[in-house]
Amino acid sequence: MSSTAALRSLNIKNINPHVVEAKYAVRGELAVRSEEYRAKLAKGDTSLPFDKVISANIGNPQQLDQKPITFFRQVLSLLEYPPLLEKEDVLLNQLGYKADVVERARWLLTTVGSVGAYSASAGAPGIKESVAKFIERRDGFPADPKDIYLSAGASSGVNTLLHIICASPDTGVLVPIPQYPLYTASLSVLNAKCVPYYLDESKGWGTDLEAIKGAYKKAVSEGTDVRAIVIINPGNPTGASLSADDVKAVIDFAAQEKLVVMADEVYQTNVFKGKFHSFKGVLREMQKAEPEKYKNVELASLHSISKGMVGECGHRGGYFELCGFDPEVQEQIYKFVSISLCAPVIGQCLVEMMVNPPQEGSPSYELYKQEYDGIFSGLQKRATALYEAFKEMEGVECDDPQGSMYLFPTIKLPPKAIEAAKKEGRSPDEFYAFRLLDATGVCVVAGSGFGQKEDTLHFRTTFLAPGTEWVGRITKFHSGFMDEFR
Amino acid sequence: MSSTAALRSLNIKNINPHVVEAKYAVRGELAVRSEEYRAKLAKGDTSLPFDKVISANIGNPQQLDQKPITFFRQVLSLLEYPPLLEKEDVLLNQLGYKADVVERARWLLTTVGSVGAYSASAGAPGIKESVAKFIERRDGFPADPKDIYLSAGASSGVNTLLHIICASPDTGVLVPIPQYPLYTASLSVLNAKCVPYYLDESKGWGTDLEAIKGAYKKAVSEGTDVRAIVIINPGNPTGASLSADDVKAVIDFAAQEKLVVMADEVYQTNVFKGKFHSFKGVLREMQKAEPEKYKNVELASLHSISKGMVGECGHRGGYFELCGFDPEVQEQIYKFVSISLCAPVIGQCLVEMMVNPPQEGSPSYELYKQEYDGIFSGLQKRATALYEAFKEMEGVECDDPQGSMYLFPTIKLPPKAIEAAKKEGRSPDEFYAFRLLDATGVCVVAGSGFGQKEDTLHFRTTFLAPGTEWVGRITKFHSGFMDEFR
Repeated sequence: MSSTAALRSLNIKNINPHVVEAKYAVRGELAVRSEEYRAKLAKGDTSLPFDKVISANIGNPQQLDQKPITFFRQVLSLLEYPPLLEKEDVLLNQLGYKADVVERARWLLTTVGSVGAYSASAGAPGIKESVAKFIERRDGFPADPKDIYLSAGASSGVNTLLHIICASPDTGVLVPIPQYPLYTASLSVLNAKCVPYYLDESKGWGTDLEAIKGAYKKAVSEGTDVRAIVIINPGNPTGASLSADDVKAVIDFAAQEKLVVMADEVYQTNVFKGKFHSFKGVLREMQKAEPEKYKNVELASLHSISKGMVGECGHRGGYFELCGFDPEVQEQIYKFVSISLCAPVIGQCLVEMMVNPPQEGSPSYELYKQEYDGIFSGLQKRATALYEAFKEMEGVECDDPQGSMYLFPTIKLPPKAIEAAKKEGRSPDEFYAFRLLDATGVCVVAGSGFGQKEDTLHFRTTFLAPGTEWVGRITKFHSGFMDEFR
Repeated sequence: MSSTAALRSLNIKNINPHVVEAKYAVRGELAVRSEEYRAKLAKGDTSLPFDKVISANIGNPQQLDQKPITFFRQVLSLLEYPPLLEKEDVLLNQLGYKADVVERARWLLTTVGSVGAYSASAGAPGIKESVAKFIERRDGFPADPKDIYLSAGASSGVNTLLHIICASPDTGVLVPIPQYPLYTASLSVLNAKCVPYYLDESKGWGTDLEAIKGAYKKAVSEGTDVRAIVIINPGNPTGASLSADDVKAVIDFAAQEKLVVMADEVYQTNVFKGKFHSFKGVLREMQKAEPEKYKNVELASLHSISKGMVGECGHRGGYFELCGFDPEVQEQIYKFVSISLCAPVIGQCLVEMMVNPPQEGSPSYELYKQEYDGIFSGLQKRATALYEAFKEMEGVECDDPQGSMYLFPTIKLPPKAIEAAKKEGRSPDEFYAFRLLDATGVCVVAGSGFGQKEDTLHFRTTFLAPGTEWVGRITKFHSGFMDEFR
C-alpha cells in the first residue's frame, strides 16, 4: 500500500476491486518492458544484445509490415476532406484514384453526412444494410440491419454483450481456455464468473463437447447461473479453425441448455486450412432442418476491421449481429450503446468497405486483389516458417498453422528452469518469455496470460513481423536457454 | 415480460438490472421518434406538419450546419492515404494544401506510424506530449505526458474514471443536477450511488457550495462512501460558466473532504461571457499559495474534440489529465484502458491538432482563424436569437447564454397541461417536448432527462441548427400550446 494512501480519496485498497483483479497480459509487464527497450534503441542505446524490438505479442499488423489496402485508404482520404471530390480530374489523372473510389466516397458521405458527426447509436443505417447484405452473401441466409450493431472494434462489442448478460456475481459465462484475455478481464470487471472449458490440444485445439458439458455441469452444480458460451473461431491464441460439425455441436448444446452463443469470428478470413464456418450460417442450416428445436437459439456473432487482410486496428471498427434475441433485451442493448453515443464513424466506413470491397470488373479490383492476396500469402509463409522452426526446437511442439494470426506452441522446460522461475516469483512460461525478450528483443505472451492446463506451458506469438530473421533469433535463444538449465 | 422469455437465456427480467435501470434521455424515446419523422420525410411523406426535423436534442455540430475546419481535415486526408505526400506539388499547387498541412501530417505519421495500427494503450506518446504543452500554455503550469490518457471522447474517459472510483454499492459520487445524463447512467450501470447536488438557477446555474455541503453530509450520514465530485464547466445542460472563485470553492471543499474532482471541461472554448477557468490552473495556483493544504488533491480533467469549434464528434477523440493520483491507482487505470486496446488513432491525431492548431504566421493560420471565429460567432448569434425568443414566450424564463452549446429555459405550464401529461403517463416537460416535436419537427430534451428540482420544468435545446426560422416555429407552437391548455 502506498504511503500516501491515507492522504487521498483513492488508493489500491479502496478502488474497484474487480478492476484490480482483472488480468490482461497482452499489454502487461512484458509488453511494457519491450516498449522500454524500443525507446532505449530509439535513443541510440547500444547496450542491448539486439538492435530491434519485435512486437510478436499483439495482433497489430500495421505496426509491423502490413500495408493498408489502397482502395480503403483512398476512400477514407476523401471522406476526411470531401472538397477533394470537387477535383475529380486531379484525383483520377494525377493521383491515381479510380472512379470507384470516388463513387464509394460519395455514397458513404450520403450515408453518414459528415464523418465528424455522431451517427445513430447502433451505427449508420446505410452501413448496417451493407453489413446485412454481406452476411447474406456469406451464409446464404438473409440478415436484418436492425439486428446489426456497429462497434468500436470487437472488444467494444464484447463489452456491451457481457454488460447485458452479467446480472449478478452468480452469472457465469463459459470461456475457452486458452482464450484471448479480454473475456476473463471483462468478466472480472463485471464481477461475474468465468466458467472455463478446456480446448483439446491433442485435436489441434478444437472444441471438446465433453469438456464443455463437464464444465457446464460442474458450474451449475456449484450454483452458477450459466448464461452464455464464448467461442473464438478461428482461435485466439490457438489458431484453431473449427469444422462445421464442431460448430453444430456447440449450437446444439447451447439450444439444449438455453445459452447465448457468443461467436468471436474476427479471424474469419485468416484461415489457412479448411474453410471458415460461420455460427450464423450453421445455425440457419440447423433451423431449416429442425425449426422447432433451434428456433430460439440466441447468437451474437462479432467481426472486426482489425484483423484479416484489413488489419485496421487503429481505426477501431467492428460489428455484432444478434439472432434470436428478445426484442426487450435488444432495446436495452440499444440504450447501453447509446450512452457512449456511437462507434467511430471512420471505423464504420471501413466496416462497410471490408464487407463490400471492390468487385471483379471494377477499376480498383485488380490492385485490391493483388494486395489482399499478397497479405494472405505473406502471413501464410511466415506462419509456416515459424512452424518449421518450432518443429526443430527441443521440447517444443506446435500444430501446423490453421488460422488467425498466432501460433501457440507447447514448451517443456527443464526442472532447473522451473526452479529458477520460482525464485523470481514468476511462472515458468513467463520466466521463459522475459528471458526471450531480454536476449532477442522478441516479445511474445506467456501461455499463462491466456490460461492453460496445469503443468503445461506455452507461449503465443504472432506471425506478423516481416522477414524470418527474428525466427532464427528465437531458435538460437531457445537452444542456449535449454543448455543453460539442462 | 415478453411471452418468449421462458424460451431464451436472456429476458428483460434476468439481464443486468443495473443496465435496465440506467436512463439516457438524450437518445431516448423522443430522439427515436424524431428519427422516424426524418425517415418519413426522406421517403417523401407529406402528412407531417413540417418539412424538416431539427435535432436540437444533441450537441452534434456537423450533423447540422457546422463545417469541419479545413486544416484538420486536410491533415487527416494525408494520414489516411500517406502516398499523397509523395505528390507534394499536386497537393500544394492544385489542391490548395499548405506547407504546414504537409508538415503536420508527416510529423503525426512519424509519431503514430500508421493510423491503422493500435497505439500505446494510453495514447501515442508524441501526442500526449503535445497535449501536455497545450495545458502548460493554457494554465501557466507544467503538465506531465505520463498523466495524460487519450480516450474515445470524454464519455469514454468518464467511463474509465468511474470504473476505478466505484468500488461497491455504497460508493457515492456527487453529481450536479441538472447534469448530462452520462453521469447518472454510468453510475447506474456500475451500481454505485449518485449523490445529487442542485445547481443554483437563481445565480445562472452556478455551483452553490452550501448545496454541495448539504448533499455531501446527508449522503455520508446515510452511510454513503462519497469519493468524488463531478463538475461540468461550462455546464451541460445549463450553459453556466463558473467564476474562478466558484472553482476554488469546489477544490477547497474537495481537499477538505478528500474527494476526487472530476472536471468535465469539454466546453472550455464555448464561453460567451467571462473567461474559462480550468480546474487544473486554479488548483496549481492554490497549491502555490498553500502547498501543504492542497498538495494531495486528486483532479481528473476531461476534454474532447467533439465540442468547441472543432465539433468532430464522429471521430471519438478526447483526453483526461490526472493530478495528484496515487501511482498504484494510475497503474490500474492503465490496465483498464489497455483492455480496450487504445482510443481511435485518427481521433488521437485530431486531439493533437485541436491542442496545437496553426499559429499566427503559418500558411494555414488565416483560414483557420477565419473558420474558427466564424463558428464561434455563428453559435453566439444563434444563442442570442434563441434567448431573445425565449424572453418573449409566456411562462418561459431563461438566462442569457454564457457557454457550452445549450440553453436550458424554465417553463411554467398551465395546470390543464400537467393534467393532460399525467393522463399520458408522462412528466409535463416530456409531454411538452413530444408535442413540440409532433407539431414542429424540433427535437429538444425534457428537463427531467437531466434532473431538475421538484415542481420545476425545463427543456434543453442546442443552438447549433442553422438559421433562426426554427426558433420561430418554437415560438408559434408555444403560444398555441399555452392557449390550448389555458
